[in-house]
Amino acid sequence: MGDDMRCETSEELKAFVMEAKQYTKNGKVADYIPALGKENPDDLSIAVHYPDGSCVSAGEIDKKFTLQSISKVISLALVLMDRGSEYVFQRVGMEPTGDPFNSIAKLETMAPAKPLNPMINAGALVVTSMIKGKSVEERFQRLLTFIQELAGDETVQYCEEVARSEFETAHLNRALCYFLKQHRIIEGDVEELLDLYTKQCSIEMNCLDLAKIGLVFAMDGVDPLNARQIMPKDIARICKTFMVTCGMYNASGEFAIKVGIPAKSGVSGGIMGAVPGTVGIGIFGPALDEKGNSIAGIKLLELLSQKYGLSMF
Amino acid sequence: MGDDMRCETSEELKAFVMEAKQYTKNGKVADYIPALGKENPDDLSIAVHYPDGSCVSAGEIDKKFTLQSISKVISLALVLMDRGSEYVFQRVGMEPTGDPFNSIAKLETMAPAKPLNPMINAGALVVTSMIKGKSVEERFQRLLTFIQELAGDETVQYCEEVARSEFETAHLNRALCYFLKQHRIIEGDVEELLDLYTKQCSIEMNCLDLAKIGLVFAMDGVDPLNARQIMPKDIARICKTFMVTCGMYNASGEFAIKVGIPAKSGVSGGIMGAVPGTVGIGIFGPALDEKGNSIAGIKLLELLSQKYGLSMF
Amino acid sequence: MGDDMRCETSEELKAFVMEAKQYTKNGKVADYIPALGKENPDDLSIAVHYPDGSCVSAGEIDKKFTLQSISKVISLALVLMDRGSEYVFQRVGMEPTGDPFNSIAKLETMAPAKPLNPMINAGALVVTSMIKGKSVEERFQRLLTFIQELAGDETVQYCEEVARSEFETAHLNRALCYFLKQHRIIEGDVEELLDLYTKQCSIEMNCLDLAKIGLVFAMDGVDPLNARQIMPKDIARICKTFMVTCGMYNASGEFAIKVGIPAKSGVSGGIMGAVPGTVGIGIFGPALDEKGNSIAGIKLLELLSQKYGLSMF
Amino acid sequence: MGDDMRCETSEELKAFVMEAKQYTKNGKVADYIPALGKENPDDLSIAVHYPDGSCVSAGEIDKKFTLQSISKVISLALVLMDRGSEYVFQRVGMEPTGDPFNSIAKLETMAPAKPLNPMINAGALVVTSMIKGKSVEERFQRLLTFIQELAGDETVQYCEEVARSEFETAHLNRALCYFLKQHRIIEGDVEELLDLYTKQCSIEMNCLDLAKIGLVFAMDGVDPLNARQIMPKDIARICKTFMVTCGMYNASGEFAIKVGIPAKSGVSGGIMGAVPGTVGIGIFGPALDEKGNSIAGIKLLELLSQKYGLSMF
Repeated sequence: MGDDMRCETSEELKAFVMEAKQYTKNGKVADYIPALGKENPDDLSIAVHYPDGSCVSAGEIDKKFTLQSISKVISLALVLMDRGSEYVFQRVGMEPTGDPFNSIAKLETMAPAKPLNPMINAGALVVTSMIKGKSVEERFQRLLTFIQELAGDETVQYCEEVARSEFETAHLNRALCYFLKQHRIIEGDVEELLDLYTKQCSIEMNCLDLAKIGLVFAMDGVDPLNARQIMPKDIARICKTFMVTCGMYNASGEFAIKVGIPAKSGVSGGIMGAVPGTVGIGIFGPALDEKGNSIAGIKLLELLSQKYGLSMF
Repeated sequence: MGDDMRCETSEELKAFVMEAKQYTKNGKVADYIPALGKENPDDLSIAVHYPDGSCVSAGEIDKKFTLQSISKVISLALVLMDRGSEYVFQRVGMEPTGDPFNSIAKLETMAPAKPLNPMINAGALVVTSMIKGKSVEERFQRLLTFIQELAGDETVQYCEEVARSEFETAHLNRALCYFLKQHRIIEGDVEELLDLYTKQCSIEMNCLDLAKIGLVFAMDGVDPLNARQIMPKDIARICKTFMVTCGMYNASGEFAIKVGIPAKSGVSGGIMGAVPGTVGIGIFGPALDEKGNSIAGIKLLELLSQKYGLSMF
Repeated sequence: MGDDMRCETSEELKAFVMEAKQYTKNGKVADYIPALGKENPDDLSIAVHYPDGSCVSAGEIDKKFTLQSISKVISLALVLMDRGSEYVFQRVGMEPTGDPFNSIAKLETMAPAKPLNPMINAGALVVTSMIKGKSVEERFQRLLTFIQELAGDETVQYCEEVARSEFETAHLNRALCYFLKQHRIIEGDVEELLDLYTKQCSIEMNCLDLAKIGLVFAMDGVDPLNARQIMPKDIARICKTFMVTCGMYNASGEFAIKVGIPAKSGVSGGIMGAVPGTVGIGIFGPALDEKGNSIAGIKLLELLSQKYGLSMF
Repeated sequence: MGDDMRCETSEELKAFVMEAKQYTKNGKVADYIPALGKENPDDLSIAVHYPDGSCVSAGEIDKKFTLQSISKVISLALVLMDRGSEYVFQRVGMEPTGDPFNSIAKLETMAPAKPLNPMINAGALVVTSMIKGKSVEERFQRLLTFIQELAGDETVQYCEEVARSEFETAHLNRALCYFLKQHRIIEGDVEELLDLYTKQCSIEMNCLDLAKIGLVFAMDGVDPLNARQIMPKDIARICKTFMVTCGMYNASGEFAIKVGIPAKSGVSGGIMGAVPGTVGIGIFGPALDEKGNSIAGIKLLELLSQKYGLSMF
């Protein structure tokens, strides 16, 4: 499986990007946050990071984008380290759901009102509420430091403009939070939680950094560049499992069949891929399909998976 | 991953069975079908089939059980060969669902009323309706022959008593069928479809046969005993993907995290496992947990997965 | 309230019909049953029946139409007489619902799976299943005789063509029945129940007969023409209550506000009105609005209610 | 209908209270707001107000209670005067619902996300958001003045302790508000709206005042004591219609059948009744049934309705 993945040159990767790029015109840039709406829908960039430290890339690789839902996997890893899996999974489930990522209806029909998994908004909010720290600042700093460590890039920061814009318009997430607070799934101040959550979503980087983070998940939590175990193997595996069962919104099942690698997408157009034991992948393509995934990014992964036999199944 | 799975002796496997067997007392044998209710809740048997043709086993391995929902994966494979994936996935989706396997509500709120995946009853009924053949008899015979071929056992038959009993009490499945017929997802006579479907669910075998079928899925559709490609590689992979995302009812997400192998369970207490490229597993343990999975069977797979590192993630 | 309702001449009523008739062009004749689809969308007829035996009418008053959902009120009255209200309301609820009349989803989320009220299809099927009699024929004959008595017209029959057509296409009602059978809300043979139910829905009459039936409900179960108590006062009142809270599908609330009289509609375009202590009304206008009510019929009742102060509220 | 309702003496009413009081032991005082939890579950008081100005009463008639959901009818009346029915019903529906009063699920499955009616919390919040005024203070003062006018009692005030307590724990209502804000059904600041809404719910009075308000609704908006038209007849009728179709939470259908008068309840244990053209009724009995209605209060109304023939149907 995938042992032979190796785009010998970036030229080879560029050809794939050119092919996938044709699909951008069928997608649409997310416009519910003004800052996201400014992106160029034709952009498509990719970086592939190998355990030996080498990296091939193609497209507008310097462009930064915010993590959005991609951050859900990383905050989950941090919280599993902070609290242990027993504590965490008492508050958020492990099951995929056929509902949209921002749905509230299932919370009402389920008893208890525990979100089905950490990749839907309700579950991700519960996860973020469990990050340890005395203040929003301390908790955010801990998450940011963790992400800088994973990316091996201390310059990673969050975009204040996007964070502020999302905070102001996050009424649906507010609704989810208050519903969860009513049912005692989350505690504490909702506005503080949303402050932390929108900052988390607004952490920005380029596809090279994202590929590096994917690589750490792929290598069971070890950073192969310095042989450090950044997170326990078990936690890296739990995260990859969620990436397969619910990482691509409610197109996760189709993605598992057509591509077959653990991946997590965000409405910014980013996708992080983690091929177990093999490579980390970072993609940025802001034109989205109707499920909220990068339309050309998915196509690009499909092409790579078929060419190099990346599917786990 | 798993390359080193090898219970040197059946003795080793027996020890795992003894440990897992303690959990049977927390489960309950399915009683909604009288024939199922007669099973001994303490039973637990397992067979592990290797590509080299060797097999280790433990427990009451001669006991036969009906496939029930395990048959959903096999009928899917046959139908994908009969019709092609484009035709099939126009009629049934690829997405996991947080709802119970027999739920009808989502069919009403979705437009079109296409079942979310082939592992829930609604989806499996649509799949069975697509098996080619001129009559119920011919269609059933084609499925049975396919299963005999996969198991490498021409004596596999169905249990008439269970089939009849299920046919007579299948009111919920009748409701699903008529709902799907109303929305033109299925065509033709509903009673004939239920006749075919309940016969399919009532095909019976022991855990050795089941392990052999799992092995063919594990080996990408090839029967390693005679090197025949029984189903195309792509189809074997699609089936394994569904086994991961929705093979264990709505405990699939938890199973993927704790065990991490493609598997499909049935309310008879059977579980078929297919570790990619490695082994096929057949389990029978009729005491079920509240989600409808063999309670000791899941425990047994968890022990094996941890011991031999079988998780794909 | 309404004591002064008295269209002195049919001429006055004709003027209202002409005004309401303009709305027929915004509606559509139900076409899911071929026999219904043949109706002339421009038709609009009305009869108003007074307790003194006089009657005014306007429009194509000789045209016959099938009762469809209007029959649900009448079968409820018969079943309340057959079984008593305690028995009946253990099997069907009394609460209005915001869901469409043919919805199945709520049955699944409620425990027990008892239909919310007798005016939605699920509830009406439960009601019809409680009509006493040894065979479908006897049970149908009892219902038909009851309807003939209410209408004071022994020639009332059912339309075989419509009954057969509805029976053959009643897949959604079959789904509801089997779901209810699974949950033991109904017993016995489903096909027999559907035979009885579709015959019930296919009983046909003109608006004069329908106005007469409405009058009996209006007069608390007494036929003012012969002073006979055809049904107990309590039962007539229960029926009128359901007509107010859920008689006009899920436009019942709006109808109660704008018109304010107990009424029951059917997809054939019929509406039966029962102004307590005052008049019975029968309307036929096959062009339906998107909720399934006669579009011009509702307008006509609105005009009459405003003119003569018919609202109960 | 009801013209002869006349408890000649308060003695007669006391006998009814004694009979109904036996049911208090089957109910429970609402405890989710500490201030409500302090009430004596055995209390039961009633006042009946006649158009001629006379009033009979029984029980602890001096005890004050907060209006809670009863206030929804009154704010609706004010908003219909402020904005007109077209404006109002573009933002809130007219249909009863089978869901609990605090449900959010239906908002998600409906498009647009318009609350089904003004008696469920989501709808009542939309209504309160439409009260005219430049500030929370001005808007609340306008509502309070209106209520003082209806009650004919300038001393009516709100209970600050209850308002504060409800404001602090109103997480479910916050969730509803933010959901509605996301869908642009409400505008403006949510905390301000909740401040206004919880004050509205905390307006307190005794059953004599409440009976007087019921009388104004019963008399089509006219205060019979001074012959003033406090609200237009149409609006009084709309309010009474909602009281019938959805005034008693999701026990409204059963109440319409068993009692048959327009009524609105609150979780404080209050019930306001308005028998059209006849009497106003105020009840206080804090022990609630599982639907949230005063358990002995409903029984008392049932007894009165049967004795004096108060049902509208």
